[in-house]
Amino acid sequence: MSNTFGKAIRITLFGESHGPAVGAVVDGLPPGLKIDNDRISAELAKRSGLESISTSRREPDEVEFLSGEKDGYTQGTPLTIVIRNTSARPQDYEKTANTPRPSHADYTGYVKYLGFADASGGGHFSGRLTAPLVAAGTILRTALEEKGITIGTHISKLHGISDRAFADDPSEDIKALEGLDFPALDPDAAAKMIKEAEAAKAGGDSLGGTLQTAVCGLEAGLGEPWFDSIESELAHMLFSIPAVKGVEFGEGFAMADKTGSEANDEPCFKDGSISMRSNNGGGADGGITNGMPLVFRTAVKPTPSIAKKQNTVDLAKGEETVMEIKGRHDPAIVHRAAPVVNAAAALVIADFIARRFGYMALRNE
Amino acid sequence: MSNTFGKAIRITLFGESHGPAVGAVVDGLPPGLKIDNDRISAELAKRSGLESISTSRREPDEVEFLSGEKDGYTQGTPLTIVIRNTSARPQDYEKTANTPRPSHADYTGYVKYLGFADASGGGHFSGRLTAPLVAAGTILRTALEEKGITIGTHISKLHGISDRAFADDPSEDIKALEGLDFPALDPDAAAKMIKEAEAAKAGGDSLGGTLQTAVCGLEAGLGEPWFDSIESELAHMLFSIPAVKGVEFGEGFAMADKTGSEANDEPCFKDGSISMRSNNGGGADGGITNGMPLVFRTAVKPTPSIAKKQNTVDLAKGEETVMEIKGRHDPAIVHRAAPVVNAAAALVIADFIARRFGYMALRNE
Amino acid sequence: MSNTFGKAIRITLFGESHGPAVGAVVDGLPPGLKIDNDRISAELAKRSGLESISTSRREPDEVEFLSGEKDGYTQGTPLTIVIRNTSARPQDYEKTANTPRPSHADYTGYVKYLGFADASGGGHFSGRLTAPLVAAGTILRTALEEKGITIGTHISKLHGISDRAFADDPSEDIKALEGLDFPALDPDAAAKMIKEAEAAKAGGDSLGGTLQTAVCGLEAGLGEPWFDSIESELAHMLFSIPAVKGVEFGEGFAMADKTGSEANDEPCFKDGSISMRSNNGGGADGGITNGMPLVFRTAVKPTPSIAKKQNTVDLAKGEETVMEIKGRHDPAIVHRAAPVVNAAAALVIADFIARRFGYMALRNE
Amino acid sequence: MSNTFGKAIRITLFGESHGPAVGAVVDGLPPGLKIDNDRISAELAKRSGLESISTSRREPDEVEFLSGEKDGYTQGTPLTIVIRNTSARPQDYEKTANTPRPSHADYTGYVKYLGFADASGGGHFSGRLTAPLVAAGTILRTALEEKGITIGTHISKLHGISDRAFADDPSEDIKALEGLDFPALDPDAAAKMIKEAEAAKAGGDSLGGTLQTAVCGLEAGLGEPWFDSIESELAHMLFSIPAVKGVEFGEGFAMADKTGSEANDEPCFKDGSISMRSNNGGGADGGITNGMPLVFRTAVKPTPSIAKKQNTVDLAKGEETVMEIKGRHDPAIVHRAAPVVNAAAALVIADFIARRFGYMALRNE
Repeated sequence: MSNTFGKAIRITLFGESHGPAVGAVVDGLPPGLKIDNDRISAELAKRSGLESISTSRREPDEVEFLSGEKDGYTQGTPLTIVIRNTSARPQDYEKTANTPRPSHADYTGYVKYLGFADASGGGHFSGRLTAPLVAAGTILRTALEEKGITIGTHISKLHGISDRAFADDPSEDIKALEGLDFPALDPDAAAKMIKEAEAAKAGGDSLGGTLQTAVCGLEAGLGEPWFDSIESELAHMLFSIPAVKGVEFGEGFAMADKTGSEANDEPCFKDGSISMRSNNGGGADGGITNGMPLVFRTAVKPTPSIAKKQNTVDLAKGEETVMEIKGRHDPAIVHRAAPVVNAAAALVIADFIARRFGYMALRNE
Repeated sequence: MSNTFGKAIRITLFGESHGPAVGAVVDGLPPGLKIDNDRISAELAKRSGLESISTSRREPDEVEFLSGEKDGYTQGTPLTIVIRNTSARPQDYEKTANTPRPSHADYTGYVKYLGFADASGGGHFSGRLTAPLVAAGTILRTALEEKGITIGTHISKLHGISDRAFADDPSEDIKALEGLDFPALDPDAAAKMIKEAEAAKAGGDSLGGTLQTAVCGLEAGLGEPWFDSIESELAHMLFSIPAVKGVEFGEGFAMADKTGSEANDEPCFKDGSISMRSNNGGGADGGITNGMPLVFRTAVKPTPSIAKKQNTVDLAKGEETVMEIKGRHDPAIVHRAAPVVNAAAALVIADFIARRFGYMALRNE
Repeated sequence: MSNTFGKAIRITLFGESHGPAVGAVVDGLPPGLKIDNDRISAELAKRSGLESISTSRREPDEVEFLSGEKDGYTQGTPLTIVIRNTSARPQDYEKTANTPRPSHADYTGYVKYLGFADASGGGHFSGRLTAPLVAAGTILRTALEEKGITIGTHISKLHGISDRAFADDPSEDIKALEGLDFPALDPDAAAKMIKEAEAAKAGGDSLGGTLQTAVCGLEAGLGEPWFDSIESELAHMLFSIPAVKGVEFGEGFAMADKTGSEANDEPCFKDGSISMRSNNGGGADGGITNGMPLVFRTAVKPTPSIAKKQNTVDLAKGEETVMEIKGRHDPAIVHRAAPVVNAAAALVIADFIARRFGYMALRNE
Repeated sequence: MSNTFGKAIRITLFGESHGPAVGAVVDGLPPGLKIDNDRISAELAKRSGLESISTSRREPDEVEFLSGEKDGYTQGTPLTIVIRNTSARPQDYEKTANTPRPSHADYTGYVKYLGFADASGGGHFSGRLTAPLVAAGTILRTALEEKGITIGTHISKLHGISDRAFADDPSEDIKALEGLDFPALDPDAAAKMIKEAEAAKAGGDSLGGTLQTAVCGLEAGLGEPWFDSIESELAHMLFSIPAVKGVEFGEGFAMADKTGSEANDEPCFKDGSISMRSNNGGGADGGITNGMPLVFRTAVKPTPSIAKKQNTVDLAKGEETVMEIKGRHDPAIVHRAAPVVNAAAALVIADFIARRFGYMALRNE
């Protein structure tokens, strides 16, 4: 029913993987936000992933603003981002039109769209729609940074290989991540992960992983009790990203093994301000930021497109069959999801600031 | 900004723990849904928890319908549920007014409401507001059951003690759970969990846990790509429940250790209908139900109210201090959260059915 | 589907005319807004209307706050307003259950609610639900007044009898209206109108009319182009009020007889600030306030309940019949609608301020 | 804050008059709705207006679907409509950048967008954005027609010259309007109106008018009491259209001169079905359609762009000044607004059907 998310700052996504374009309309932006095209390109390049372990469908992803932009700034009117599909190869998907790929949205899309949707490459479900999401989120991330709010995401795990966690104060880690092609904090872990992904590629398989994200510089008081809790809205956005299957804040599922005396974050004073002695809760109490870094993890399932033979059904013939997926695919997408999560978080945080202080508060003067 | 959730079926929560009442307005209901008061009372009793391991604040939780109900059926107009607070003891909280309890919403509520909110017992943040949520959700759960859609939740873990997982077809497990005071599938695990919680109570501490939920009987095609994915909306709702810190669908975070060939759910035919050979994805692909049981886990942090001394700050004096929480508290809330999760899931599922087929489709004729 | 209106400040209405209560939940309010109970009572009394020309159903309309209020101030949490129905006489309506009263919502309510709704006295459609709307709006009107924003409404016409229009600067007129039982600017017109209504009452008939409303002290810049124009949102709210059949801004329908050179409002300077030489547009251009008083008219149809015999159908027998409406009714409601329009306008204006500057901007410090 | 309208069927508008394009995203459409490009072109041509009395800015208005369309049908995914601006002449507006044109949104846009918005030709406020609205609405109008629901609009008045009103059953009138370039029911009135507009053009002035719209074939039961009344939502949409200053249903403002016995619509039987003896209420009671034709009028102010000299202010110099508007303008826009109102009504009606029966109910099989 709705491809729109947000209350004060709202994003509407559109497009199909092998149609003319993918894009987004962002509404509720104040006038005068800087649009840093180089930054957007850099984030889109990160979204394309390391060449050795990413799909060979590589497009320039050039952003066109159909509306809302003028001279490098937001006008304040709806901002329309369009990225043309220049490497569309729908013929790759003709053979699979009746044989839903396992754990893709082919079957559910067929049930929902009754065959009217262009399902090539996932059609509207394709991860390609995260490109305009990244472009939109990067504009807000830039605005947040001018307010001292920084966001970073690293691969905390890839097929069992773990990165170290964010430091208690993740600010320096976030800075370091900015310069990395492959976002792992520990270079050794990064090397192992890349090797593992290359091996999976060679073996025609794919790998799952988790991301850990931190948002620094948030003041206490953003978010709402109950349905508009900061965790609710962030999780809503994160579960919109294809392949995401879990979201946890702070210690999350590990809370199930803890006692209250272990898990509670005790308030204290630090440099004259209220702080907490620990951050097991991930920076929010009662749905509202408490001034600690907002920290969460996102679980990303293995790319469902694998080269190995798989069982499926033939919808036209009504019988079981075996398929091989051709096309251009990724042995892992968790690293490509990192800039998407950063953009998604920026959109949600900006929305909460706009709700509390008005959308004009996103300007920096 | 908003205490309302849902698009076609919408719930608005209100109330403070030690104010006159807690309640909800449910809007978008069709006329003629049966309101089974005994069922509501039974679910509210489950929400009160096992007496030996739950707070001694035990209230009758009598539901009054201020509007929208007539002769045991919904009118189709907004349904207003009110549950009076009969055991309010705000004096228990006077001492702690300036000393935020660790990992409660006392500090964030103070920042947000500037001292104007009645924070006794958590005020508006209190888990007591889940009572009207349970009442509202139970009405829809009853309507869904008449359509063959059943929902059940068990404690999959309590402080490291694990219950067995749902069977591949959870229908029988869901039935069995209905009759249980303490919702664990394995009676031995249940006994151990209760013992562990009693020990925590004796020690003045509390325990975290996880819940696993299954929804059976859902047809394929509910949910949307992107922002209104079934995972997004369910997670949004679940993270609204106090103490929830993680949500995962199917294998969730365990996906990080899997390959695509292990994780993919291959379509097949079963009794002439399309099914999947496994359900690692938890019943949804591309944000849309695929006809398999919808399965998810929810992480619940240990009750932050513990009897042990804790460090905190005195907001009035601007200095650190030590506090002891008095009042009536729970050594675990994960079992009390189970009926809340069931009600929450019923509200979300009903909303998706109403969006796709119209709200009149919730009627059973 | 939705009994909720507003984006940053949201009101949810509930209740039936002869059920336990009518009420509202108001969400998004900042903490610390003063709740002036005397002012609310005074507005509710105006909504009850002049005794000689209003229904003899006269209730004390006592406001109870079930949540969100403490010591005469908003808490910042959802504010729940309940007004019990103390003069419910459903037996008055038994005879008419199957014979829809002309131009009432009896027939449409029957189609929508299939007989499950309590239709006595209009049920959920009853004008009684404007009582909690008035209570809610008055809280915001008080807050707006502290910012120098005043709202007033007079009866511009009652069954052909016209009041003078607002002065170019309506501030003094607005002040004068506050003290009036019957809101007409010209005392002679008021006397004639009352006489006309009394005559209609004697004759068992009812009268239509129009209201003119002015909002003074609004800064330029509130509202949005297109769908969230200030006219769109105000009209949306006004057409929610029972019996409203028309809304126009500034010269409205009279624009059809004008040329551009007559109708255009030319910008000028006044006391050093930008102003307009005329206000034919009613204070908004492009959906956004331009700093001039916001001025609009609302058309109110004659009360459909009249004592005269009327033709209708018998839904049970499937045949035409003649009915006489008993019960307690109004020969005119336009005067009773004036405080409702003021409250409605306050809610909409406050919502726009909260969207632009954040909900905390409604506080006055 | 929001350029999106609708609940189940939602439209998001974007674009600037002299930017790259104007467009819309329509979300919530079912798969398989026919997209009749000829019909869309025909409606867009009507929106361009009669050549002799319309602006000389005449563009081909070619519709491109960036997403959601395949082989002439909706996919069911978000439908993105883009119309490139091929006749952009921003230089026409350079001189007026600092001198707000009277009764345009220049001044309010300046206050809101702080100079960051491209205001040429009204920028985002331009009536050009109604082109994608017409394209979107026409797709739904076609779908409604297959269900027997027809929509038509005629010019009921142009600068004092009146057309005859719709017949009691407007079906035939609606059919006749389809074939007309200039939508007036009475050919004599049409001729007089065109002459009047040509005279205004010659005199450098412009004219206001009103439109009357009828929707036939609606079943009873669409709409909601209170905030989602069919009048509320239609008025919300209509007041979003630039230059609209009034909306009334049925007898609307004329109700102020009527008694209840004159105004009430008495239920009766007609051909075995429930009908009303009159339609003064315009087809809705209590916010819900009653099965009679939905009839409403829209007041359109004179085009504010006139060739005559006008007073205004110079925002840069802070002083009053006199301006002459150059560029290409319309002596009347009321005729051009007719297809816009039809499209707007189609969007609202389709949304109500989708809310009640689900969005799949818009399909015709």
